Amino acid sequence: MTQTLTDNDALLIDGVALGSRLIMGTGGAPSLEGLEAALVASGTELTTVAMRRYAVHGEGNTAGANLFDLLVQNRIRVLPNTAGCFTAREALMTAELGREALETDWVKLEVIADEHTLLPDAVELVEATESLVNRGFKVFAYTNDDPVLALRLEQLGAAVVMPLGAPIGTGLGILNPHNIELIVSRASVPIILDAGIGTASDAALAMELGCDGVLLASAVTRAQDPVRMATAFRHAVIGGRLAAQAGRIPMRTHALASSAMEGRADF
Amino acid sequence: MTQTLTDNDALLIDGVALGSRLIMGTGGAPSLEGLEAALVASGTELTTVAMRRYAVHGEGNTAGANLFDLLVQNRIRVLPNTAGCFTAREALMTAELGREALETDWVKLEVIADEHTLLPDAVELVEATESLVNRGFKVFAYTNDDPVLALRLEQLGAAVVMPLGAPIGTGLGILNPHNIELIVSRASVPIILDAGIGTASDAALAMELGCDGVLLASAVTRAQDPVRMATAFRHAVIGGRLAAQAGRIPMRTHALASSAMEGRADF
Amino acid sequence: MTQTLTDNDALLIDGVALGSRLIMGTGGAPSLEGLEAALVASGTELTTVAMRRYAVHGEGNTAGANLFDLLVQNRIRVLPNTAGCFTAREALMTAELGREALETDWVKLEVIADEHTLLPDAVELVEATESLVNRGFKVFAYTNDDPVLALRLEQLGAAVVMPLGAPIGTGLGILNPHNIELIVSRASVPIILDAGIGTASDAALAMELGCDGVLLASAVTRAQDPVRMATAFRHAVIGGRLAAQAGRIPMRTHALASSAMEGRADF
Amino acid sequence: MTQTLTDNDALLIDGVALGSRLIMGTGGAPSLEGLEAALVASGTELTTVAMRRYAVHGEGNTAGANLFDLLVQNRIRVLPNTAGCFTAREALMTAELGREALETDWVKLEVIADEHTLLPDAVELVEATESLVNRGFKVFAYTNDDPVLALRLEQLGAAVVMPLGAPIGTGLGILNPHNIELIVSRASVPIILDAGIGTASDAALAMELGCDGVLLASAVTRAQDPVRMATAFRHAVIGGRLAAQAGRIPMRTHALASSAMEGRADF
Repeated sequence: MTQTLTDNDALLIDGVALGSRLIMGTGGAPSLEGLEAALVASGTELTTVAMRRYAVHGEGNTAGANLFDLLVQNRIRVLPNTAGCFTAREALMTAELGREALETDWVKLEVIADEHTLLPDAVELVEATESLVNRGFKVFAYTNDDPVLALRLEQLGAAVVMPLGAPIGTGLGILNPHNIELIVSRASVPIILDAGIGTASDAALAMELGCDGVLLASAVTRAQDPVRMATAFRHAVIGGRLAAQAGRIPMRTHALASSAMEGRADF
Repeated sequence: MTQTLTDNDALLIDGVALGSRLIMGTGGAPSLEGLEAALVASGTELTTVAMRRYAVHGEGNTAGANLFDLLVQNRIRVLPNTAGCFTAREALMTAELGREALETDWVKLEVIADEHTLLPDAVELVEATESLVNRGFKVFAYTNDDPVLALRLEQLGAAVVMPLGAPIGTGLGILNPHNIELIVSRASVPIILDAGIGTASDAALAMELGCDGVLLASAVTRAQDPVRMATAFRHAVIGGRLAAQAGRIPMRTHALASSAMEGRADF
Repeated sequence: MTQTLTDNDALLIDGVALGSRLIMGTGGAPSLEGLEAALVASGTELTTVAMRRYAVHGEGNTAGANLFDLLVQNRIRVLPNTAGCFTAREALMTAELGREALETDWVKLEVIADEHTLLPDAVELVEATESLVNRGFKVFAYTNDDPVLALRLEQLGAAVVMPLGAPIGTGLGILNPHNIELIVSRASVPIILDAGIGTASDAALAMELGCDGVLLASAVTRAQDPVRMATAFRHAVIGGRLAAQAGRIPMRTHALASSAMEGRADF
Repeated sequence: MTQTLTDNDALLIDGVALGSRLIMGTGGAPSLEGLEAALVASGTELTTVAMRRYAVHGEGNTAGANLFDLLVQNRIRVLPNTAGCFTAREALMTAELGREALETDWVKLEVIADEHTLLPDAVELVEATESLVNRGFKVFAYTNDDPVLALRLEQLGAAVVMPLGAPIGTGLGILNPHNIELIVSRASVPIILDAGIGTASDAALAMELGCDGVLLASAVTRAQDPVRMATAFRHAVIGGRLAAQAGRIPMRTHALASSAMEGRADF
């Protein structure tokens, strides 16, 4: 039943159809084996990899090679990210590195303001998005939840806009659902909620607010039982997506009987 | 994968193992066909039926007969409820009626204070629970979210305690998660959240708070697409349950990088 | 200006006009001097005193005598409470003790279910209210936030109904504003929010929800600077009351310029 | 008592001590008389005036002249704002106009992205702040609630940073208290919450989060009784400020008796 309902509901990005709207990152995983099991359990078809970490090891990077083998085997597409970059310039260099090494022009653009908040820097982000788009990248722009900035990034050519729910790693969920709803209501490109997710209901809520997908990493990799939590998120994202499509009952201030005492056909 | 994870996670009530922790009521459904499709999509193995409505039609109740045929065919167990009762006395009579007609000593006990709020009446509820337990019923006690009353109902012998998230039919979700958590933390019988659920994330949250199940009706039957919404809730309850078991990351005030820039094994 | 606005806005209870809608209890105060300063700063004209503690010392209770002298000097009326009672019977005895010792038939009725949650016991509370009313007491009934119970207490003759915002001493504020609003909307007697208040905005919110007053103790007595916090609450209760009367702007999903660019008289 | 507590708690901006931490704007007022009464009731010593509206009428602007007479008589300082500007360029021109007309180098900088959300445009705001600071203005920068942008504006030389609670005119309060707290914790210049305030408790909360002041207009001017609402906000801001200083009790998950049954000195 579910199959039928969701089969034609792929997430389309740059002509690619992703069967899962849950995108799981690789950050925070304690081991490669654990990571693989969690990725598979999540059902994700796309994962982020930090180019900074990858690059450190250069040519003979066995661990990195193993990770990519794993992803190929599980048919999980790679989305290189620019984690650890503080300026547009750094992000450009890191993105080029990712394109060359991984043979993809997809890039998750992260330009962070400082090490304490790890929040995106709006000004550098705008500059980096513009440059990357000009160089032919498909930019997945990680941003704060400012509706103005989100729209600006789309107008600059971002393929996907990724507002945060809360600062990364906090697990605080979606601090400002009003902003996320506003972002979604004005977007023509996919909106993927990224950062802040702590548990399944957060992910379901993101989808109910109209997001096209959810990206998370440490909520799974740092959970006590990552495989179980990955499975939880897989269900939650599907559930939230279906709920968004199903037309929920309106909120009411006053009670309404489900079993009306009269006036309804009885069966 | 999910199969394996959830296979042994049945909800045990009175020696019966229910494979689904989502319990879907029949109230508010516009047609028998629509109801059947939604029940099946929800995956529920237990459903509530209002004895009041059933009883009106007496022996030759074709609609009622059709409903029960439907439930038998889909192997869905019936939980008669006492919807529409305002006193312990009325509830007792209605419960006896249900036991006789449906040959089950399970009963969802509803004793409502008034037609406007449709909220449970604590005093009548206590009295009715005591009486029904004494008469051998397995009482599923529908109650407000008062942790004291919830524990009292268990002590009086209720088989299941069912606190509300919000007034019935409002779709406001869980107005006081703190109370639900407190109820769960002190309970030895199953706690099933009942009433108030509006959308998938509400159901996931209920499970994350530690509830053993979720009961809802109009959130599905009155949604624009009941089958899709039933499917949404099925996933949300599974997702919330798994998340509750998986040990979520703690909430943090400050950010924490998922891709640490040093000090971690790289792969 | 404020004076004019609030002068005729006394809280009427049992024919007595209280000039302040903030009622401050005496619990949790580390010293008599500190307590006096905080009470005066709060502007309260009514305070609760636990009869249990008072009674322990019997006739020669110097500390108790000093407290009452202090209250008389500051023209603060005493409201004996039944803190520490777990049954209707205990509460009756304690109330009688208070009436005799303090020569008042006002009593704040507390019947607590257990020492861990300190939450009111609905069933014992109903019984105790009925008995105390029959014996001529003016009952200030401390209750949970169940709208059904609140109305029942009024119908049984309670002079004031005092729902909690959150469990006592938690400082969690008002966990379920929806319930408080519902209680207020159906009440004919004063509703005073009691327990759970942590800070000034909580008290303002209580008044905005329509409460007639706020009772608190440890939020002041256990603050780092009790006098300053008492003053904070005094302002917050006045502010919240005025806001409730002033007719706030409606909440809107979309922005609305305060400085419209056209169509308004310019000055 | 309050007097003593608050006398030395002036808000210092650019060497000027403001006795009130509530700043009330003039937007949305239906009449000059009503506005004056509300301003006086609010206790504000600083008010914003939209230069756009003022400028329209040019030299013979009687209405404008009357407004300024009123402010002079009531000793309320004027803060010209750049409401209605969509680019840094427009804002600069409007600011210069205000400086010349009102003989003040204070300016509230508003650079709005579009007419629908009325949200600040981060990129233009940064540019405009830099230019205005270079030209010797004291910039009160109206911004979204992005902690990164707030700090950047301070670093560019803004005298005051004014994050929004919610989109202007919505009355939704403070949608993301976490961000406001983060902004405050890193700021060395005054933080004044601006936009979104609907009622007294919102203003108290802003102060409790650590803001140095609150700016609002339509929450007063569009209330049913503006004078009463202005008085409400005056109390709420004082109350919130005192509460922030007084050291509130911590939030606790579990109850704590205010009247401990043993172990405390009795009085």
